[in-house]
Amino acid sequence: MPKVIDHELRRRQVVDALLRLTAERGLDEVSVAKVAAAAGVSVGLVQHYFANKDEMLLLAFHTIDERFDERLRAWLETAGGAPEDVPVRSLVREVLLQLMPLDQERADEVRVWLAFCARSVGTPQLAKVYETAMLRRVEQMSDAVRRGQEAGEIPAGLDPSAEALQLLAFAEGLAQQALLASGHIAAELVVDAVDVQLGRVFLSSVTGENA
Amino acid sequence: MPKVIDHELRRRQVVDALLRLTAERGLDEVSVAKVAAAAGVSVGLVQHYFANKDEMLLLAFHTIDERFDERLRAWLETAGGAPEDVPVRSLVREVLLQLMPLDQERADEVRVWLAFCARSVGTPQLAKVYETAMLRRVEQMSDAVRRGQEAGEIPAGLDPSAEALQLLAFAEGLAQQALLASGHIAAELVVDAVDVQLGRVFLSSVTGENA
Repeated sequence: MPKVIDHELRRRQVVDALLRLTAERGLDEVSVAKVAAAAGVSVGLVQHYFANKDEMLLLAFHTIDERFDERLRAWLETAGGAPEDVPVRSLVREVLLQLMPLDQERADEVRVWLAFCARSVGTPQLAKVYETAMLRRVEQMSDAVRRGQEAGEIPAGLDPSAEALQLLAFAEGLAQQALLASGHIAAELVVDAVDVQLGRVFLSSVTGENA
Repeated sequence: MPKVIDHELRRRQVVDALLRLTAERGLDEVSVAKVAAAAGVSVGLVQHYFANKDEMLLLAFHTIDERFDERLRAWLETAGGAPEDVPVRSLVREVLLQLMPLDQERADEVRVWLAFCARSVGTPQLAKVYETAMLRRVEQMSDAVRRGQEAGEIPAGLDPSAEALQLLAFAEGLAQQALLASGHIAAELVVDAVDVQLGRVFLSSVTGENA
């Protein structure tokens, strides 16, 4: 067992260093050698995880996705257990808030996400990964909207996949603006904006979160 | 006069080459030498406009902003003259559609915008430019919302600057997703999404564009 623990620990050290450096300086300034130095491990070990910038970004991107899932699972556990056991509006709200740069971890994630998006332009392999991740989110969000309609929280007439795209487009743009214009978009404004958007999809009479 | 014409013509050649290369390959692959070759001018002339990548991006960013303004002015001229002379909903719709990657020119612009956003992380000088550009757009959009309220097109109770932020966040995210997942988000879907969002801010009884 000790070897497995070492492996997991080292992997986490490398990934953490990669995310931190990419978030702080942008991917342009990040190299295998710098990640190794920041993680306190050998260059050879870092190369075990990735050989070049595209592989760095892929690992960073997948890690962000994992962290997002972990945070959502943790929230679900305290909120009621399974997605079916919480009001759909609460779940969707939590999904959107987890995508916002509301603390250091999430701000770093938005930075890395942005680096990934920018590099995807002209790198079909990365664009494919973005597209897959986005479609997965759209599908999950469509399911949530459908459940919201069954529960009477969302008007039956709305198209679930159109609503999902709408909510996720809004979240992606808001996260980016909140990150880059953080001097003018306070955390409170971000949360308000999320609630306003939710109030336009969900029937306010059900949860009453918004007028 | 001939000198002035040459200058403008050459400037445009350089800027066009810069935008095209940045959009095609991402900024990582763009250099002063490559822009010179693509524009068919000397390296010295290109260096007259910018000395490094950050200056390239600044010029590209300002050019995008100018083009956006030009397209909006052209649309206004055919639509009725001044912003005051067209329904606010039509104007806001046109603003949002001009930000979407619905043709080659606008798709290139979204690519450059994305490169700019990604590089702004960790480059305070660029982040400042992004923030200034975004605040200008939020202000213009707030004015439009206010005029929409005066004209009875938008409910009086809404907060103009919150609505402006909402609309622009949505537009930024949608443009990005439409660009990067263009295989799954067709132009028609993008226009529909814009109209759905407008239908949630504007009183549908006035223009009737959406149910």
